[in-house]
Amino acid sequence: MPDLVFGEVPAVPVGSAFRDRESLSKAGVHRPNQGGIGGRQGVGADSIVVSGGYQDDEDLGDLIIYTGQGGRDGNTGLQVADQELTRGNLALARSCDEGLPVRVVRGAGGDPTFSPSHGYRYDGLYFVTSYWSQAGTHGFRIWRFRLERNPADQDVSPSASPLPAGDDTVPTYSAVQRMVRNTAVTQAVKDLYDHTCQICGTRLETSSGPYAEGCHVIPRGKPHHGPDTPANVLCLCPNCHVRFDRGGFYIDGDLTVVDALDDRRLGRLSVRSGHGLDTALLVRQRLLLAS
Amino acid sequence: MPDLVFGEVPAVPVGSAFRDRESLSKAGVHRPNQGGIGGRQGVGADSIVVSGGYQDDEDLGDLIIYTGQGGRDGNTGLQVADQELTRGNLALARSCDEGLPVRVVRGAGGDPTFSPSHGYRYDGLYFVTSYWSQAGTHGFRIWRFRLERNPADQDVSPSASPLPAGDDTVPTYSAVQRMVRNTAVTQAVKDLYDHTCQICGTRLETSSGPYAEGCHVIPRGKPHHGPDTPANVLCLCPNCHVRFDRGGFYIDGDLTVVDALDDRRLGRLSVRSGHGLDTALLVRQRLLLAS
Repeated sequence: MPDLVFGEVPAVPVGSAFRDRESLSKAGVHRPNQGGIGGRQGVGADSIVVSGGYQDDEDLGDLIIYTGQGGRDGNTGLQVADQELTRGNLALARSCDEGLPVRVVRGAGGDPTFSPSHGYRYDGLYFVTSYWSQAGTHGFRIWRFRLERNPADQDVSPSASPLPAGDDTVPTYSAVQRMVRNTAVTQAVKDLYDHTCQICGTRLETSSGPYAEGCHVIPRGKPHHGPDTPANVLCLCPNCHVRFDRGGFYIDGDLTVVDALDDRRLGRLSVRSGHGLDTALLVRQRLLLAS
Repeated sequence: MPDLVFGEVPAVPVGSAFRDRESLSKAGVHRPNQGGIGGRQGVGADSIVVSGGYQDDEDLGDLIIYTGQGGRDGNTGLQVADQELTRGNLALARSCDEGLPVRVVRGAGGDPTFSPSHGYRYDGLYFVTSYWSQAGTHGFRIWRFRLERNPADQDVSPSASPLPAGDDTVPTYSAVQRMVRNTAVTQAVKDLYDHTCQICGTRLETSSGPYAEGCHVIPRGKPHHGPDTPANVLCLCPNCHVRFDRGGFYIDGDLTVVDALDDRRLGRLSVRSGHGLDTALLVRQRLLLAS
């Protein structure tokens, strides 16, 4: 199997049309002839095909809520079992963590607003900005991936930077790995805790003062629509923020912080008076990343 | 003095024209009648005026390289002393760390391509994406701030989210506090270190594998143009990445990691064979944030 290629494939501009999966594979845009996710689970996913195979997919053009693979009946195509965070699903999760660009191909079976009338079309690079699990429309657990077109197109185009020395097989790209937002509400929560992490107690010092991040327990925006209120915001250091967002640990309703990998108790969330944190949201968040 | 207002001022759309500094101040767009930076040093800067007062300013429209305040002769306007990271300069640094939006006003004295022909114009919200010090064209140390117009305009417009409970004086906004990028080169360095922080040894576990960030020692893009090569990239955990980027510590040419606040030795940078790190870039980076 050829090495994965993250980013643009040479000589295949955005908008290129392909007759079938075989020509898509030969061009190196999406290697697998069958599966919707191209990649390897320990490395990342370099391409997906959006073609309406899963009824839970949502295609909004610049934003795609993509359903993971597995658990479907081979004949009927219906969901008959839970999906696991393995294989292609784990590869897409890895692309989120690492900030790897994903080539998006749309097929004729997808949402007619954004899909070609026949065959397949290469639609450029997206990145996975979050992932979670939920009950699908059939009641079985599915994994879902939020893919966004990079706001600045130049950020994902082939870069002119030198390749890693001594390895000219590494393709170049530049993508957003992580974006931290601040709002008046997260600022108020950071101020309440004097920029001290509610999980580990760290207070990061910089040359201009302490640094912390506001973490929305239930993410804002589509599809979770978590509120931008203190009830839904924690003050965390960047390390704890990453681990919380990406399922490294979870917080029980009694404020116990638990390592998600081995269920070890890591400590207790510190909550100051006046915060108004809603612990029910912590419980709901845990379910989003339970595998 | 009225409280600072971060974000849009009610009833002042982008493009609003003002005759003079007094009307700008009365409208609450930029409070100080003289200084170019509005804000408080422990809190943040909520507005700046770009009007060509400093010959080191660079106005590229969506990107502004803004010179801090201080060190100029009151009569001649020439730089006659070093600038310090205090007052308005520290307020702008704080806006960078916290992800606070800054109202940008352009005056008739600025770059003619982007400035009004007379008076002042409110040009919307920007955020400070980095800051550093350098020798100015007169040879004295100046502080400089990179301000970028938010790529997605809706991210900085007044939000419809509820205000913090019990405090309806807090204005709302949503801005980018921090953006982490990944490239083929940073990915290769992260892989070399198996996602282990070169400073503190942390290897963050998430549900889909380890998480680390590639840190460009000399930042990429304008104005530093640091190369995207392994020689210029470290593998760090998010906490160490933030402290390194924001002057919390520096790394000597002999790889000693030093706390920038009290010059305490924190440890030694771990460097694996095959990395090809250029220690001269570490020394150059240190100078960018020396105050």
